[in-house]
Amino acid sequence: MLKNTEINSPPVNSRELAKDLVISLQDEICNGLETLDEEGRFEEESWERPEGGGGRSRVMKNGNIFEQAGVNFSEVQGKELPPSIINQRPEAKGHPWFATGTSMVLHPKNPYIPTVHLNYRYFEAGPVWWFGGGADLTPYYPFLEDARHFHNSHKEACDSVNKNIHKVFKPWCDEYFFLKHRNETRGIGGIFYDYQDGNGQLYRGQNKGGPAETVSREIGDIGLTWLDLFSLSKACGKSFLKAYKPIVEKRKDLVYGERERNFQLYRRGRYVEFNLVWDRGTIFGLQTNGRTESILMSLPPLARWEYGYKSESNSREELLTKLFTKPQNWLEDKSLDEECKKFDAIG
Amino acid sequence: MLKNTEINSPPVNSRELAKDLVISLQDEICNGLETLDEEGRFEEESWERPEGGGGRSRVMKNGNIFEQAGVNFSEVQGKELPPSIINQRPEAKGHPWFATGTSMVLHPKNPYIPTVHLNYRYFEAGPVWWFGGGADLTPYYPFLEDARHFHNSHKEACDSVNKNIHKVFKPWCDEYFFLKHRNETRGIGGIFYDYQDGNGQLYRGQNKGGPAETVSREIGDIGLTWLDLFSLSKACGKSFLKAYKPIVEKRKDLVYGERERNFQLYRRGRYVEFNLVWDRGTIFGLQTNGRTESILMSLPPLARWEYGYKSESNSREELLTKLFTKPQNWLEDKSLDEECKKFDAIG
Repeated sequence: MLKNTEINSPPVNSRELAKDLVISLQDEICNGLETLDEEGRFEEESWERPEGGGGRSRVMKNGNIFEQAGVNFSEVQGKELPPSIINQRPEAKGHPWFATGTSMVLHPKNPYIPTVHLNYRYFEAGPVWWFGGGADLTPYYPFLEDARHFHNSHKEACDSVNKNIHKVFKPWCDEYFFLKHRNETRGIGGIFYDYQDGNGQLYRGQNKGGPAETVSREIGDIGLTWLDLFSLSKACGKSFLKAYKPIVEKRKDLVYGERERNFQLYRRGRYVEFNLVWDRGTIFGLQTNGRTESILMSLPPLARWEYGYKSESNSREELLTKLFTKPQNWLEDKSLDEECKKFDAIG
Repeated sequence: MLKNTEINSPPVNSRELAKDLVISLQDEICNGLETLDEEGRFEEESWERPEGGGGRSRVMKNGNIFEQAGVNFSEVQGKELPPSIINQRPEAKGHPWFATGTSMVLHPKNPYIPTVHLNYRYFEAGPVWWFGGGADLTPYYPFLEDARHFHNSHKEACDSVNKNIHKVFKPWCDEYFFLKHRNETRGIGGIFYDYQDGNGQLYRGQNKGGPAETVSREIGDIGLTWLDLFSLSKACGKSFLKAYKPIVEKRKDLVYGERERNFQLYRRGRYVEFNLVWDRGTIFGLQTNGRTESILMSLPPLARWEYGYKSESNSREELLTKLFTKPQNWLEDKSLDEECKKFDAIG
């Protein structure tokens, strides 16, 4: 089969297109979040990277809805990619590289509103290029309708490009955002993809046993072009507010007490554990002179740990741990309804 | 030169001796801490490891002095050590192994009392054996006398075995407990050592650029035997209460407010970052089916992160960050007195 360089080169202005996309996603999402929060405002810090490029980090602290919201944009260059990436794309070896992306983590105050993460990025290195990204939701209290709405929004975005995409990127998300040491997913998932290079094929990777051990395998030729993958980032990125805003609006006025706050802080500890122990991007950034403050904007403003914590049996906290931290077929599995009904955890 | 198996085999009851030592350290330290705390009591949980062996974890929660105190003991066996350890001791390859140790992290409530960590361990694998361990102090507010007392106690313990030890294990501690992504040490250090195999020589390793990249190099033949290294663990382990108790007693009645509590919680975030990103033991345990709850007993009960935090200039918080998170010659550098005097941070 022909290489993507032959059948499917990026447009001449590929870097500009990708940068414009992610920077406009940052703008659009930040505007949407400020409107949603009503009170909180983002503060912006621009920074440069000694080796080339830079970014702008935006943080909202102590908003009305958001205890902390961090939305990064970056456009960076370097001389050669690190071995962990070269292993996945050997053709990039010896070439200078370019990367641009936006990433975001929102930590709401109210424990009934889920934490959410989004990241869309684009790489070029010599003869190769690829897109990666995704979005995933981490609820502290279980609501089946929220999980379904988030997944459905992302399925629609994927389907708008190609109907074969969602069934590959949904399980990849469950596999990637997985805490092996807890046997738990980080939350209810969403979509995740990496190294999509428009060879006409979809790739799928797994996170087996730790950050370094990632394998990539071919899924099949579905004729994806550079423009398809660009459109995918755009469609998914633009679906974010549609996917998350209605959940916030539904949950923001629910009254909570110390019990719910404590459980939220406890579960936020798991978020810290995933990001610092398993997340390839975070670890790679920290170990290779990334901008620490921007990388760690993903960590919650407050988190707690408790030795031997066990949730009350037959509680919503137990349901969260049993059902909402395990991979589920949220959109099609009707048996979830029954289990959630018992705990008034539909919607 | 002769191998340790020839000149310096462990005694026939080496495993029993090592186990008895670490288990009695756990007992002695827990008793001492209960007396010190006055109110808090340790709860004990015994556990077994499917591959062989087990341990007992003791936790004190919400004591008078200690917000959380965790003291583990374990004695475990396995079929073959993981590659990360085999790289350091290739002779262990293909042999079953035995390990016993005690480890501890104390998180006091009062921000004027430092967090402290201790770990002493012993390994056997086929023809080789080694000791490792150490103790290090992480203050939230600077007191020069506390740093000197902690270092001096450990120097005396090392000197009681051999006068050449402390000057090797003190800087190793600064190197090991280092957050590269923050350019900070975890605290004011103490001692740290690993892979001491009584070949008559002292070894020293470095933690260069991450958990996986550890080198070991020879320091010199100072004639250490198995019994010397055993005595070293014992002397250092037994010096722990002497090193830490006077600091607690001096600081426990100091009055603190929200500012100090907030700074403590912020700095505890760094403790989490070190343990989850850089600590070889923690990462190795989490990635290889260790007992998660016992491993993560080291994490603080509450921690916070704040994007772009900067301490007030000319504050004690700034002094902590500038002076007490950088390697210092605490025992001999008299210029530290002057800098600390300005902030009433002597003792």
